[in-house]
Amino acid sequence: MAGCTTSAQDAADPLPSWNDTASRKAIIGFVTNVTRQGGTDFVPVSERIATFDNDGTLWGEQPIYVQGAFAFDRVKALASQHPEWTQTQPFKGVLEGDMKAVAASGEKGLLEIIGATHAGNTTEEFETIVRDWIGTARHPTTKRLYTEMVYQPMLEVLMYLRANGFKTFIVSGGGVEFMRPWAERVYGIPREQVIGSRIKVTYEPRNGRPVLLRLPEADFIDDHAGKPVGIHQVIGRRPIAAFGNSDGDFEMLEWTTSARGPRFGLIVHHTDAKREWAYDRASHIGTLMRALDEAPAHGWTIVDMQRDWKVIYPVQR
Amino acid sequence: MAGCTTSAQDAADPLPSWNDTASRKAIIGFVTNVTRQGGTDFVPVSERIATFDNDGTLWGEQPIYVQGAFAFDRVKALASQHPEWTQTQPFKGVLEGDMKAVAASGEKGLLEIIGATHAGNTTEEFETIVRDWIGTARHPTTKRLYTEMVYQPMLEVLMYLRANGFKTFIVSGGGVEFMRPWAERVYGIPREQVIGSRIKVTYEPRNGRPVLLRLPEADFIDDHAGKPVGIHQVIGRRPIAAFGNSDGDFEMLEWTTSARGPRFGLIVHHTDAKREWAYDRASHIGTLMRALDEAPAHGWTIVDMQRDWKVIYPVQR
Repeated sequence: MAGCTTSAQDAADPLPSWNDTASRKAIIGFVTNVTRQGGTDFVPVSERIATFDNDGTLWGEQPIYVQGAFAFDRVKALASQHPEWTQTQPFKGVLEGDMKAVAASGEKGLLEIIGATHAGNTTEEFETIVRDWIGTARHPTTKRLYTEMVYQPMLEVLMYLRANGFKTFIVSGGGVEFMRPWAERVYGIPREQVIGSRIKVTYEPRNGRPVLLRLPEADFIDDHAGKPVGIHQVIGRRPIAAFGNSDGDFEMLEWTTSARGPRFGLIVHHTDAKREWAYDRASHIGTLMRALDEAPAHGWTIVDMQRDWKVIYPVQR
Repeated sequence: MAGCTTSAQDAADPLPSWNDTASRKAIIGFVTNVTRQGGTDFVPVSERIATFDNDGTLWGEQPIYVQGAFAFDRVKALASQHPEWTQTQPFKGVLEGDMKAVAASGEKGLLEIIGATHAGNTTEEFETIVRDWIGTARHPTTKRLYTEMVYQPMLEVLMYLRANGFKTFIVSGGGVEFMRPWAERVYGIPREQVIGSRIKVTYEPRNGRPVLLRLPEADFIDDHAGKPVGIHQVIGRRPIAAFGNSDGDFEMLEWTTSARGPRFGLIVHHTDAKREWAYDRASHIGTLMRALDEAPAHGWTIVDMQRDWKVIYPVQR
């Protein structure tokens, strides 16, 4: 999918799925500016770091995060080994499709679901589970594979930046090990450029056939102020461009754009109830309030999906 | 320094500072093998990950770790702001050059020194301090800049691997923020490919001019079993080649070489008392015992510095 725009198209128009609005002009203006040899805003290749949130920025996040759908499917797949789950929340709610009961179990319930579905196996076992699931699971209403619900205009931005010497990173609140198995194939982003939330892993030698065992304990939450921290841990330099869609991305954009030199921040505003979803302030997923209000003061570009994007998803093959 | 071998030399001999011994043959054999198109051991570029310990593997670590020398110099630089240090260990010991007193303060003393010299400032302030120090500080006996005490034969290995499509990473027990300011210039390894121990940082907005503040608290220790964990956190794939020099690298080499497919492990054995230092089992720094004993069973290459290396350090300019 990452390769579906031909290089001939690239030369003619690097962003063919974008209408010719202010957002498109801002992206192209920034990239032209920082790559102009001898220009005052020229940025050397080593400093061309761009970070992208994933859920709601590179792919859809409604009606629930894709990783949530994965966790629920895992509960169902594992239920036969846990007969007690038919009587215990939040598992009972998941098995009966009673989302109110799941929600009522709160953060404690969420952690129990993560512990039961994301831990207790090796990193290689978990990777196989994710790979198998992402290859077949489909969105409840669009019936597309989730990897076919990535945003075509954003794929073009990723390719355009890389064609101009940028290293593109994912910086997501989602689990890093949930994204790595497919990020390269879908986004062209290699595993070592995926930053996300982590659970603890421990090294077990197992008689010379060592494994990394996934523990039911959070190690790092890559959201809000965690995003600049995660960027610092893994990349060790400040991005010059950051792309997000919710208040969870506020600090990443603030960190990126508050330094000297040319900087670019972009917020994907979900405004297209017909082709995708329309939500911002009142949404429980991808809440966008502070970042929307403060974007103008920071000079951030706000993408209006309905107006700015010719298509949402890649053409299905 | 990373560019001091010309490409003409590369073509003729990628490892000109290596004698033509088994170690050199093993390195070249491995690289030839995994890059041979259509060969059974061919490894795609995306999987060509090589990890290098730093202290004792890429540069010297005697008589104390370079970062230790940095910390002691910082104590001296900060002493005028801390008159109480002339009366309190371990600071008193550092100021008086009484290493026995410093050692007697144990791990608690070490943590106090780290807290006093490595924390309480922003990441940008700390970077400036490291840059200034590394640009001028010299080794007590060789009088070289520490960055001139990197191993020329290992610089050639780094370049040779990269010329063959490898991504080279540092995976060190040392502090990641102590290495990043100079790793690209000295080793050709960009900041985002440096993995090390971390202290906690916290994001402080400071009225729209945010900083990352360094806290006096360990976040991650990248040594022993921490090395495969750090590799997993940051790279997310298993290396196919790993280079170390001490038992702190054992798990990294074990993790790297215990998977299927072509794998390469190498231990730098410090055997050259005349040109560098000779130490292994009994040394407090860079203790090498288990990894030396078990290397043959794992098929790891053991470099004998005295025999295998024509030169130790780069020619001084």
